[in-house]
Amino acid sequence: MDRKKLITEIRRKKSFLCVGLDTDIRKIPEHLLKTEDPIFEFNKQIIDATKDYCVAYKPNIAFYEAHGPKGWVSLKKTIDYIPKDHFTIADAKRGDIGNTSGLYARAFFEEMDFDSITVAPYMGKDSVTPFLEFEGRWVILLGLTSNPGADDFQQLELKSGEKVYHKVIERSSAWGNEDNMMYVVGATRAEALTDIRKIIPDNFLLIPGVGAQGGSLKDVIKYGMNDDVGLLVNSTRGVIYADSSESFAEAAKAEAKKIQNEMAAFL
Amino acid sequence: MDRKKLITEIRRKKSFLCVGLDTDIRKIPEHLLKTEDPIFEFNKQIIDATKDYCVAYKPNIAFYEAHGPKGWVSLKKTIDYIPKDHFTIADAKRGDIGNTSGLYARAFFEEMDFDSITVAPYMGKDSVTPFLEFEGRWVILLGLTSNPGADDFQQLELKSGEKVYHKVIERSSAWGNEDNMMYVVGATRAEALTDIRKIIPDNFLLIPGVGAQGGSLKDVIKYGMNDDVGLLVNSTRGVIYADSSESFAEAAKAEAKKIQNEMAAFL
Repeated sequence: MDRKKLITEIRRKKSFLCVGLDTDIRKIPEHLLKTEDPIFEFNKQIIDATKDYCVAYKPNIAFYEAHGPKGWVSLKKTIDYIPKDHFTIADAKRGDIGNTSGLYARAFFEEMDFDSITVAPYMGKDSVTPFLEFEGRWVILLGLTSNPGADDFQQLELKSGEKVYHKVIERSSAWGNEDNMMYVVGATRAEALTDIRKIIPDNFLLIPGVGAQGGSLKDVIKYGMNDDVGLLVNSTRGVIYADSSESFAEAAKAEAKKIQNEMAAFL
Repeated sequence: MDRKKLITEIRRKKSFLCVGLDTDIRKIPEHLLKTEDPIFEFNKQIIDATKDYCVAYKPNIAFYEAHGPKGWVSLKKTIDYIPKDHFTIADAKRGDIGNTSGLYARAFFEEMDFDSITVAPYMGKDSVTPFLEFEGRWVILLGLTSNPGADDFQQLELKSGEKVYHKVIERSSAWGNEDNMMYVVGATRAEALTDIRKIIPDNFLLIPGVGAQGGSLKDVIKYGMNDDVGLLVNSTRGVIYADSSESFAEAAKAEAKKIQNEMAAFL
């Protein structure tokens, strides 16, 4: 999905909600465990229930990889099931030397048909650019993450006075453009959004950590929104685990609708 | 495999060679393509041919993931086939927020039974420590990589005067110890090994980039070896693609033996 289409979908639905499909077999309702593929069955019902209120889905690949080959089957069925007017994110945080990143790109863009993949920046340019060679696909680079460990290296101060994450965003933004690169910026760091918007006014930002991880939607909008909205705000646990009974999908729907309503007020 | 056993194997075989199993379907001998699982068949013959000359195997996960579910089957068969007196490395370069890293750990340490996994440091402590909770398993953290992109962020100078990779190694070394943490240090940076050994005199280093990527084994030994050897030197292309004919395994054996011979002179 290209940028124009993504913006159109956001305006049409009055939503920039991304639903995280971190589907944990230990957390899904018990009655689904009897089905042939409980993870896919859960995802299918969550997608049916939430698709009118969100513009993107983001499976975290670890939750599928943890099940070995059959986890990959569940993931493939999930990505094939997501309606084509939704932006899809493989939350994989991959990154390796050039030819190897190219293989990860093939895995997620060709075998799996994801629109985008999250990528870790530590190995630098030649670990990122192979993902950018796929027309119409996106890299979502880790900028400033929302976990406590973000302070360990991302927030270190460089000799130049910038933080490490500033330099990561600034330097990497020259490798692509606003049509093929987004950045992960944790919502628990809303105050940092102002600085980041000075470096990359136009790129979309993927914001995890609203809700369960403690970030405020209002702050994210205040400091991060641009003229094209420029935001995808992710919610996972608050939506998909809103209820653990047989009516989990209805609860997920209500929660997604609630977030979409909050977002609509700003669009 | 624990540290003591690894050192014993290194001394016994007079080798600290790790063979990279980056098995590319486009590069393996044509006659294998007719077999049921060409990637596993190739690996099996490479393992049979090289096992006496190396102490470790390192499949790069991208090469398997690129094939979707069936790639994971090939990987599982490969890890199950590697003799138990060899140290195994999942070259996956994973790293995510805490609970998610825990799932990656389960995937590679329980589903797949790898001894170790390579991990990217950008997300900090809580993305690394979940891997350390598995008794007898190892994290191999990216320190200074051998690709050109290593200059983009790893080599940035901090206000404190250190490079980013110094700080990554120094800070992370407190999260584990020499029994459960190793570091990736590219052999193209042998001169940096002296600095790194000041920070972590005792940890094992995984050195990629000897041979095809241009590093010198002699320099690596000179600047990186410690009293327990403390080195695993990886070779991939030079060994597994030494020959593309039906006698590829014999060629791989000769190449592995040659490297082992060079190593033996220093042990």
